[in-house]
Amino acid sequence: MQIYHFFRLESHLLLESSTMSTTDTIAAIATPPGEGGVGIVRISGSNVWKIADEIFQCLELPSSKEGGTFVFGKITDTSGEEIDEGLCLIFRSPKSYTGEDTVEIQGHGGTVVLKKILRRALDAGARMAEPGEFTKRAFLNGKMDLVQAEAVADLIHARSDRAAKAAVEQLEGGLSKQFNALYDGLVETAADIETTLDFVEDELPDDVFPNLGKKLDQSFQTLENLLDTWDEGRLLREGARVVIMGRPNAGKSTLFNALLGSERAIVTELAGTTRDVLEEGLVLDGIPLRILDTAGLREAECEIEREGIRRARAHSEVADIAVYLIDSSQPVSEEDAEHLSKLYPSRTVVVLNKADRKITDNRYPITNSQPVEASLINGAGLSEIKAAIAAKLEAGVDFHAPVHAVISERHRNLLVAARVELAAACEMLSGFEDETVALAAEHLRDALESLGQVTGRTYHNELLDNIFSRFCIGK
Amino acid sequence: MQIYHFFRLESHLLLESSTMSTTDTIAAIATPPGEGGVGIVRISGSNVWKIADEIFQCLELPSSKEGGTFVFGKITDTSGEEIDEGLCLIFRSPKSYTGEDTVEIQGHGGTVVLKKILRRALDAGARMAEPGEFTKRAFLNGKMDLVQAEAVADLIHARSDRAAKAAVEQLEGGLSKQFNALYDGLVETAADIETTLDFVEDELPDDVFPNLGKKLDQSFQTLENLLDTWDEGRLLREGARVVIMGRPNAGKSTLFNALLGSERAIVTELAGTTRDVLEEGLVLDGIPLRILDTAGLREAECEIEREGIRRARAHSEVADIAVYLIDSSQPVSEEDAEHLSKLYPSRTVVVLNKADRKITDNRYPITNSQPVEASLINGAGLSEIKAAIAAKLEAGVDFHAPVHAVISERHRNLLVAARVELAAACEMLSGFEDETVALAAEHLRDALESLGQVTGRTYHNELLDNIFSRFCIGK
Repeated sequence: MQIYHFFRLESHLLLESSTMSTTDTIAAIATPPGEGGVGIVRISGSNVWKIADEIFQCLELPSSKEGGTFVFGKITDTSGEEIDEGLCLIFRSPKSYTGEDTVEIQGHGGTVVLKKILRRALDAGARMAEPGEFTKRAFLNGKMDLVQAEAVADLIHARSDRAAKAAVEQLEGGLSKQFNALYDGLVETAADIETTLDFVEDELPDDVFPNLGKKLDQSFQTLENLLDTWDEGRLLREGARVVIMGRPNAGKSTLFNALLGSERAIVTELAGTTRDVLEEGLVLDGIPLRILDTAGLREAECEIEREGIRRARAHSEVADIAVYLIDSSQPVSEEDAEHLSKLYPSRTVVVLNKADRKITDNRYPITNSQPVEASLINGAGLSEIKAAIAAKLEAGVDFHAPVHAVISERHRNLLVAARVELAAACEMLSGFEDETVALAAEHLRDALESLGQVTGRTYHNELLDNIFSRFCIGK
Repeated sequence: MQIYHFFRLESHLLLESSTMSTTDTIAAIATPPGEGGVGIVRISGSNVWKIADEIFQCLELPSSKEGGTFVFGKITDTSGEEIDEGLCLIFRSPKSYTGEDTVEIQGHGGTVVLKKILRRALDAGARMAEPGEFTKRAFLNGKMDLVQAEAVADLIHARSDRAAKAAVEQLEGGLSKQFNALYDGLVETAADIETTLDFVEDELPDDVFPNLGKKLDQSFQTLENLLDTWDEGRLLREGARVVIMGRPNAGKSTLFNALLGSERAIVTELAGTTRDVLEEGLVLDGIPLRILDTAGLREAECEIEREGIRRARAHSEVADIAVYLIDSSQPVSEEDAEHLSKLYPSRTVVVLNKADRKITDNRYPITNSQPVEASLINGAGLSEIKAAIAAKLEAGVDFHAPVHAVISERHRNLLVAARVELAAACEMLSGFEDETVALAAEHLRDALESLGQVTGRTYHNELLDNIFSRFCIGK
């Protein structure tokens, strides 16, 4: 029996040709906003040499220089007045980030001066780059696939070593390889299935369908394994949300400041000091956290405070971890018991603060969790609280396993869609009849359509817009 | 009569030799902190090639490349694992910012990834650069004088086009030239004065001292002209402080938000909503402003609010402009009149807010200023308020004159010290006697000592530490 692959990979490469003109020249500030020693304006496209020669004055014209070199000179405005002095880096296509001819103008890293250089480039004929447009061009010019392109954004936004490592692994192609293996395996199986349709049933060996079923099962498992990395991916990318809650004056802002090691929140002995939700980042045990300090929960008379409490409750609902503080120098109140009953024990760290003055006679004992005793005003219990937060987070995800690339929300959605089709294909295939086998092949094609969008083997403009609009401008 | 210059400029070049070892290799992140497409770690010093070869993997060793070129490769950790991929720019002494051998590693512009690259460079033998140390080395290696070095920081921190232009003018040497002319002129006069001491009085022509006096007067005038640029310099560098004041509920936060064009401050109808002093930057008519929203002035019962009011008063004392809001739907209160009496009319913009409901029967009429009527809740009067702020600021400084380099606080202090000595020298010289002429020469020497510190002809380590510690790290 001859099995051949009739799936043409090429047919998946460009479902819709890009409407983006690649002949126009784009420019943007490529360094982070703010003040620093050095800043970069990147210009890429076919008109780059004319623009560079016009705005950058040095002994030799930028356009006369080889790729891989840079020159020192002055950036001047239309009247020849100096805007800044700095470097001009020369990149010749295809040896550049975008694959196009590119220059990078390196000036002083001030907000105003970089904007002036950018405006000068725009006046000379470039247009403002859209978010992620440089990377989009890199993708369209075959410099990287979509998964690698996304890794660029992940690496920039990485907030912990582990997140950065996972992003670099992905940028190097570690994750793409797994997606491609899954895709290629399914293409092969799909081709094999469609081939069976050319034969009458008794011409086929008995083990054809069981073998194809086994292959599909393997692909299914690979897909499940990839999906399993999502939880870790989400925490690494977005940071775990840790919301500090409790009744007024339980010590929430004191804990918030202690975790951050700075006096970020105003602390007073007055209940209701905190109103706005304060949020700061922190890396704990390699896991990026977003810590939120909230208004104390009580029946507030003040309109501003009531709004603060409303926001506190909203945040607690989407938290990965709630840290619930109780003033243990007071009897545990009915309200505390009520608030606690609404939180998931697996995601809640209960802290008995002011434990140096703890009273034990409680009408509402804390039973459904292992509370941490603390006396935050002296810093006592802080490391135990940190350990408890880390333990709750790591119960779901092993942050000490070797770093591997982890899928993103977008990958997950596509994998889930593919899983549905794959499951349907498996079911259809078990029918062993021409009609159901044809349907199985169709489901597989739909699964491949979703999977192809992960790395960009299949793509359409809307998909690209969706991905690259999340990038920062200048990348 | 032979006049010769006995002042050796060289003797002023190095009052104290630097104790900084220039053989060690320094490294720092040179781009602004935060997230962006690209970030740079700069490494400079004699050990740079060993470090670059160790941490940067590409087809050719960085150390084998010529200055003015760059290579693409991977930054790896000690175990060879990839930290990031990017560029390595090669600078060969003296053609670099510092004048030393230097590389710039360009990676992805994320906080974590850049810190990892920096840590890698430190592990490989570099040490963390101190703030401004790259520029300090540029100064020590004769790449720029101190005034130009300061312009680097000014350009980075420039918050308006005009400030950036003034900084570039200073970086190009425009201001240095003026300081040098003043210095050189005084050196010449000082030499001439000392020469007269070698002659007995009647050997000298009658017009010697009057001529020397004229020269000193000219220098004095040059110095005064330089000092005159200080007001503008201060406003361009630091931004004018505009403090919004008034009784509770006068509409201060509404004005603050309207000026910024965003809902920065929480606005409610409740008096005492704002507690912390909120500060934001804004450029008005080319002038960088720092707008401060403050707590409403009243006898507050709440401890937090009282602290807010205390801070509001403190800020008003150092403001360039106070914008005092009055709720004109109420009679002007005794407190308003009292607060206003404490503010300088030339620096105060009085706003009669809620003018659509204005009442005219006032026991305390506003007499000592031209109040602006506004109804901020509808945006009415906003442009008039902006115009009034700009007019008050421009009364002192002409922000529409051509841009020129402007002196800084440090320059001013040194110029003021020089002026004292110069005035003393003038007075002494008018005595026409050997003894007083010798004293005049001494005062001139002291004036030159101060002036020399402006550009760094004269310097000591403490001076350098003072200047460069204000720089950002990485510059």
